[in-house]
Amino acid sequence: MTQHDDLLARFRAGQRAALARVISIVENQREGFQELLHELHGGGRNARRIGITGPPGAGKSTITSNLIRLLRERGQTVGVVAVDPTSPYTGGALLGDRIRMNDVASDEGVFIRSMATRGALGGLAAATREVIDVIAAYGFEVILVETVGVGQSELDIAAASDTTVVVLVPESGDSIQTMKAGLMEAADLFVINKADRPGAPRLAREVEMMLHLRMGQAMRNIPAHHGVDLRRAGKKTTSSSTSSSTSTEHRAWEIPVLLTQAEGGEGLPELLAALDAHTAWLEETGELVRRRRARLEERVRDAVHQSLLLRVWQDGEGGAILEKSLEALDAGEVTPYEVAARIVRAAAG
Amino acid sequence: MTQHDDLLARFRAGQRAALARVISIVENQREGFQELLHELHGGGRNARRIGITGPPGAGKSTITSNLIRLLRERGQTVGVVAVDPTSPYTGGALLGDRIRMNDVASDEGVFIRSMATRGALGGLAAATREVIDVIAAYGFEVILVETVGVGQSELDIAAASDTTVVVLVPESGDSIQTMKAGLMEAADLFVINKADRPGAPRLAREVEMMLHLRMGQAMRNIPAHHGVDLRRAGKKTTSSSTSSSTSTEHRAWEIPVLLTQAEGGEGLPELLAALDAHTAWLEETGELVRRRRARLEERVRDAVHQSLLLRVWQDGEGGAILEKSLEALDAGEVTPYEVAARIVRAAAG
Repeated sequence: MTQHDDLLARFRAGQRAALARVISIVENQREGFQELLHELHGGGRNARRIGITGPPGAGKSTITSNLIRLLRERGQTVGVVAVDPTSPYTGGALLGDRIRMNDVASDEGVFIRSMATRGALGGLAAATREVIDVIAAYGFEVILVETVGVGQSELDIAAASDTTVVVLVPESGDSIQTMKAGLMEAADLFVINKADRPGAPRLAREVEMMLHLRMGQAMRNIPAHHGVDLRRAGKKTTSSSTSSSTSTEHRAWEIPVLLTQAEGGEGLPELLAALDAHTAWLEETGELVRRRRARLEERVRDAVHQSLLLRVWQDGEGGAILEKSLEALDAGEVTPYEVAARIVRAAAG
Repeated sequence: MTQHDDLLARFRAGQRAALARVISIVENQREGFQELLHELHGGGRNARRIGITGPPGAGKSTITSNLIRLLRERGQTVGVVAVDPTSPYTGGALLGDRIRMNDVASDEGVFIRSMATRGALGGLAAATREVIDVIAAYGFEVILVETVGVGQSELDIAAASDTTVVVLVPESGDSIQTMKAGLMEAADLFVINKADRPGAPRLAREVEMMLHLRMGQAMRNIPAHHGVDLRRAGKKTTSSSTSSSTSTEHRAWEIPVLLTQAEGGEGLPELLAALDAHTAWLEETGELVRRRRARLEERVRDAVHQSLLLRVWQDGEGGAILEKSLEALDAGEVTPYEVAARIVRAAAG
């Protein structure tokens, strides 16, 4: 493939325009995007990936802005992917735009990308992972992935990082009683933002109590959603074998609950220190290797499924067979399982 | 297949124990579940499927209880599937349990099933659809599908009905400004419950204004999530061709916004009347056929994907190849795309 050779050369020479172009190709799955990802694979292996998630209005953007500033002050380069798939009815500015307008606009050591592809909610997780890979391969040392925690998909994005920060606020109305399944389980660190507001100490206590109740469980549950297709397919996951080859048991990570007032920057240096401590823990216990390998597994599975789907629905006759069968299906003359078997046979033949 | 012949005979004879047994087999994907679904396909074709969704605490269970009572009063049989995938931390009773404890416990014309399979969030939508099919095939005339609207998956479940009711409450904290993407778009009817509370008229006005803004758009947007795999696979969806063969344009459905106080039963007869009106509209415009066919398409796609995944991960060598490649992947010596191609080749060979 020579199609993108020139682009790759400019990307590797550190040209920002080439970075933006590669991201666009990958995000929109334009021709050659898989070859590009193939070429760039492994390039950003050591980038630190930090997911920041939580309900709308929790102050995630402000926290992200502060982290960018602190990371820049100690000389690290920062890539940001801001994922906001909320409805156009929100009328709010995109997270990335909000950050961009702040003080980092002209800093070459910062790169910010918004992803808000409404209409591709289910595909957003895969697309975001690939964009993160590209930014890491370009050379950014820390990647902050900010997502509005409104759905399983965005939660998956955040949880695919090395470290996941869950941001809560007292007045969000989401007491942990009604909190979305998975959000609490995904956290490596909790931040109670707007800590000066009434209810903050109580929320912190609630979270700590919940963490206490969970002691003795695994220190981090991969969200239930992962590998669900495989559960349905009866597949034994291989992650167990990889996790047994490293040992994460002997020193558990105690999930901290931090208080911040991000508007004024209060508590942010402490958050950065906690993030550093988590990174050190990940490295020392082998958990970093385990998480990175789990991500690679996920990537292989995605690629396999995409390739199978392409064979059936694009290259194959799947669509034609399905369309021809609709009337008979609707009349109850054939079943979805018979039609499916026909489609699979046609794809294999 | 003779394995479940006896069970099927008892199911068809209307034995409740057989219904519960078939559901268990289907829900847990025990041996022979696909043959069972195959045998039962088309049986519940004319059952009316009504999805009821909304944020936690909106009063969906109370509304469902009331609808059961009203439907029973006019002689219709009612199946209920209550989907509650929220975290065990909620500590709340399952929706189905709450309804069951009410006044319908000994009524043979009512069947209630809770689904709360934590750990299978992604697979819950498919499993729920299949359980609904079973209950419909058994002969229940109306199926109410109640879901806590916390994620895309539960929204998909509700939106896979003929009619989707979205329940909101003034104090839920979810002003429509911060409402989850897709929830508003999925509604055929809105219910503002707890209408005596302050904020109810304002919320009703907000919803009506939003509906007004959307006039001119299609009257019901299938949630963006649907067919995302196919988008990624570049597949042209066939639904467009089926919708063009029926005509739903000439008489649009005006989405009503109803006020209820479900605790006292107020507004519930009006809700039932609106549901009847929607059913009539679905039938007269051909939209019912379109929606039913879209569901069948989805079913075929699911079956195709499941069969492909089985071939790769269970029957095939996919897992072994992936496991062997993990170290090289992690070292950056091979890419996920190369490993995926190897797995796909092995499955085809």
